[in-house]
Amino acid sequence: MATTVETGARVLESYLGGKWQAGTGQGAPLMNPTTGETVAWASSRDIDLKAALEYSRNVGGPELRSLTYGQRAELLGRIADALAARRDDWFLIARRNSGNTKADAAIDVDGSIGTLKYFAKVGARLGDARMLRDGAPMRLARDQNFQGLHVGVPLGGVAVHINAFNFPAWGLWEKAAVSLLAGVPVLSKPAASTAWLAQEMVNAVVEAGILPPGALSILCGSPNDLLDHLQLGDVVAFTGSADTGEGIRRHPNIRRHNVRVNIEADSLNAVLLGPDVKPDSQEFGFFAREVVREMTSKTGQKCTAIRRILVPQDKQQAAIDAITAQLKVQVVGDPANPMTNMGPVVNMAQRKLVEEGVGKLRTQADLAYAPENFAPLDADLAHGAFVPPTLFSAHGNPEADLVHELEVFGPVATVVPYRDKQHAFALARRAGGSLAASVFSGDTAFLAEAGAALGASHGRVLLVDPAIGDSHTGHGIVLPSCMHGGPGRAGGGEELGGLHGLWFYHQRVAMQGSGTTLASLAAQAADPSPQ
Amino acid sequence: MATTVETGARVLESYLGGKWQAGTGQGAPLMNPTTGETVAWASSRDIDLKAALEYSRNVGGPELRSLTYGQRAELLGRIADALAARRDDWFLIARRNSGNTKADAAIDVDGSIGTLKYFAKVGARLGDARMLRDGAPMRLARDQNFQGLHVGVPLGGVAVHINAFNFPAWGLWEKAAVSLLAGVPVLSKPAASTAWLAQEMVNAVVEAGILPPGALSILCGSPNDLLDHLQLGDVVAFTGSADTGEGIRRHPNIRRHNVRVNIEADSLNAVLLGPDVKPDSQEFGFFAREVVREMTSKTGQKCTAIRRILVPQDKQQAAIDAITAQLKVQVVGDPANPMTNMGPVVNMAQRKLVEEGVGKLRTQADLAYAPENFAPLDADLAHGAFVPPTLFSAHGNPEADLVHELEVFGPVATVVPYRDKQHAFALARRAGGSLAASVFSGDTAFLAEAGAALGASHGRVLLVDPAIGDSHTGHGIVLPSCMHGGPGRAGGGEELGGLHGLWFYHQRVAMQGSGTTLASLAAQAADPSPQ
Repeated sequence: MATTVETGARVLESYLGGKWQAGTGQGAPLMNPTTGETVAWASSRDIDLKAALEYSRNVGGPELRSLTYGQRAELLGRIADALAARRDDWFLIARRNSGNTKADAAIDVDGSIGTLKYFAKVGARLGDARMLRDGAPMRLARDQNFQGLHVGVPLGGVAVHINAFNFPAWGLWEKAAVSLLAGVPVLSKPAASTAWLAQEMVNAVVEAGILPPGALSILCGSPNDLLDHLQLGDVVAFTGSADTGEGIRRHPNIRRHNVRVNIEADSLNAVLLGPDVKPDSQEFGFFAREVVREMTSKTGQKCTAIRRILVPQDKQQAAIDAITAQLKVQVVGDPANPMTNMGPVVNMAQRKLVEEGVGKLRTQADLAYAPENFAPLDADLAHGAFVPPTLFSAHGNPEADLVHELEVFGPVATVVPYRDKQHAFALARRAGGSLAASVFSGDTAFLAEAGAALGASHGRVLLVDPAIGDSHTGHGIVLPSCMHGGPGRAGGGEELGGLHGLWFYHQRVAMQGSGTTLASLAAQAADPSPQ
Repeated sequence: MATTVETGARVLESYLGGKWQAGTGQGAPLMNPTTGETVAWASSRDIDLKAALEYSRNVGGPELRSLTYGQRAELLGRIADALAARRDDWFLIARRNSGNTKADAAIDVDGSIGTLKYFAKVGARLGDARMLRDGAPMRLARDQNFQGLHVGVPLGGVAVHINAFNFPAWGLWEKAAVSLLAGVPVLSKPAASTAWLAQEMVNAVVEAGILPPGALSILCGSPNDLLDHLQLGDVVAFTGSADTGEGIRRHPNIRRHNVRVNIEADSLNAVLLGPDVKPDSQEFGFFAREVVREMTSKTGQKCTAIRRILVPQDKQQAAIDAITAQLKVQVVGDPANPMTNMGPVVNMAQRKLVEEGVGKLRTQADLAYAPENFAPLDADLAHGAFVPPTLFSAHGNPEADLVHELEVFGPVATVVPYRDKQHAFALARRAGGSLAASVFSGDTAFLAEAGAALGASHGRVLLVDPAIGDSHTGHGIVLPSCMHGGPGRAGGGEELGGLHGLWFYHQRVAMQGSGTTLASLAAQAADPSPQ
């Protein structure tokens, strides 16, 4: 099924059971959010998903696990190379199906390639092993020959990866890289609305003949009865809304077999401006720039994006002024125009949700900034899914519920004043668990204190002092070497984090036996813990 | 509330909110399973559980976390000493309320004290730290001053521990030891039917004034609305039936806040006799002895007990003969009589469940052994919860569903013949995920192969060669240094496993910042990974 991206709107096939399969009918349309044109269709109707899972489990799994970690790492490197060779194609699809600017597409596409390369590199360290180990054999009884060893054994099933619309490329590869390295075959289901990029990338990898049969599959369209056929040894890794995640957790078959599930869901991430930061300082500038970058990058459609801006109450107006000054010069419009800083959201349904969310926030917060006479560049508001960057101020009521509970998935954030640092930490926690927080301060002791205080309710905390104001990787950027996930509302998941991410795809086992037996197991296992 | 165990039947109070509180009414009776007499009552009616949780969370948590790991480890040592001083009392209660023989009570009581001492010792290694760390700071960007570090921050809530009736002492302390060491206050809810021992032990620790206020609470009786008041930062660790575990996972409030839950549930654990083992060999003797020990220890009421005995088909009769020979000499009766090897199950309701389970197994397997004219020593079958040791043989049909799916929680196991090693591994997996498996063989290569093959569906695998036939700690014994839990049907949990167990009570966080900030965090953190 070699195709080029220039083909007109077609129905995306799924790669399942080792072959391309078409669903019946056209299925759901994939849109160009800038113009409202249909760019493709996705249908999975009448495809036998039970058979697809069995093929992954029974063919892909044993094939992958016959390789060592080192060999699988090498395959990841080859995937990265195959994808890098067609980077321009991916950027074109990202623009046409996701309304991405070049900078937006880079996060998704280059982020994928970088993540694959990272796991190719760190996975190579595991060499010839086929199991993980945690520590060395330890004595368990008076007889020193009776010993114990914790190992990780790759799961025997298939990894179902269910991804969100905002990162069709990175969502696919950040999960697949870890799963394939672990020896667990992947069946990836991109969000239908932006499945084109994921499907075309899988096609490129299939064409290149890199992976053994059954190692990588993709389902374009509806998941239908997919979850009904999961069993012991299978896993689900999901990124998306809390509601859908909840539906997966409650699914009767998932529950019946206690299928392992990892969820990354909504999150009302906060940035915290330290009490020490003066409005004319360098830190203040770093802070305001990061807020605007987070609000506008991918048109605010990152689950890690800043939604709440916690500032000392006596600096609230200064913060609003600094952020507004930068929001005013953002150019919203057709991402094909190099003048454009911010494209549309993914489709009209999302635009409507953002508009409704803005309407709800208005009932509990003051509008601090929204452009007058909003008119996107080279685009038509009647057909394009454009929304303006919008800043709120929780002036009178920093405790108002919606600010801390309603995730508006677009270029929208709220400035929330705090009284003192304990109040700031409490406000950050009000979101009930988040993926990421960032703190801007020139005071190292405060940064360390904030890290400890915010740590229990966050998966990642970025602590910015002036020394790294220009060199840090950003509040919203997920690095393959750092854990991605957050407690509570954010889903309670853990992804990536270097080789630690492999444990999700392994069963942790306490092996007990004689020194000879455990030495034999230890020799087949590699320690993935950081050096 | 200093009392002695000689007091007659009374209503057990709960220690909540820093004081002893009585529920209204008598509540549920606690029985002596040997005689059918009521030994105590448990009522929690009308106790304010929301206030109790808030006290643990807001008083106990900060008090505990103001201490270092090293200081908390020291407290565990003092708890162990306080409990050891009243060992005879605990054995008496274990006999009167659980029908335990001395050997049974030792597993529960000495197992508790040993686990506390173990965590006192390994916890001391963490010294002055108040956070965990995984590895050292690593560079994250071109600028080598921008770094990352994974840390574990103790959760800010309360740990609700819901325990099973079979280990009132060990269930309490194996969970509490890890939670207290982590800095997370404990609200323990023993099974009402055997809550006496747990309550009396908590009383001893309260009397000794070892722990800060709010660090340890116990709820005797029904949990009522306890789960309705949990929130972000709280956790639930549950041991018991799959059905109840499922109810906890599905509880709307647990779901709403994504409260972290660990579950240890039913498990149809298997022992596997290696294809190489000859009936007249030493290994065969070790195997048969372990099977009988597992069937009769605690009257088969261990979640790790052997339920399925996988043997090469040509050695099925030899296995039945060897096991039966030892079952025949078991003396079932009043545990007060030193002649007794096996006491009653916990109460008449459990006896009925075991009898029903035996009736169901009979429909799919042949009865290989049950005593004729079953008559317990010094006891009356009309009032005592006695059941005979019973061996089945899945002679004609090793695949019969019930053998692999129905956990009969008593002294009942089934011999299942296998054709070859792949068939044996497949039969072991038929239970859908188990806590423990053991393999007996004189062939080291086979043991290592079995470990890898069974690992993906088990939490612990005991590999017995003749060198450790006498010195291993047993198929069903959970050691604090080894992970306890299993995938799938066994609940998917992970407990203990040395300091690794601490992670359940910590949020894993990727900290990102400058070298100075991360060095400050790293200095407050200790690495819990095995040396």
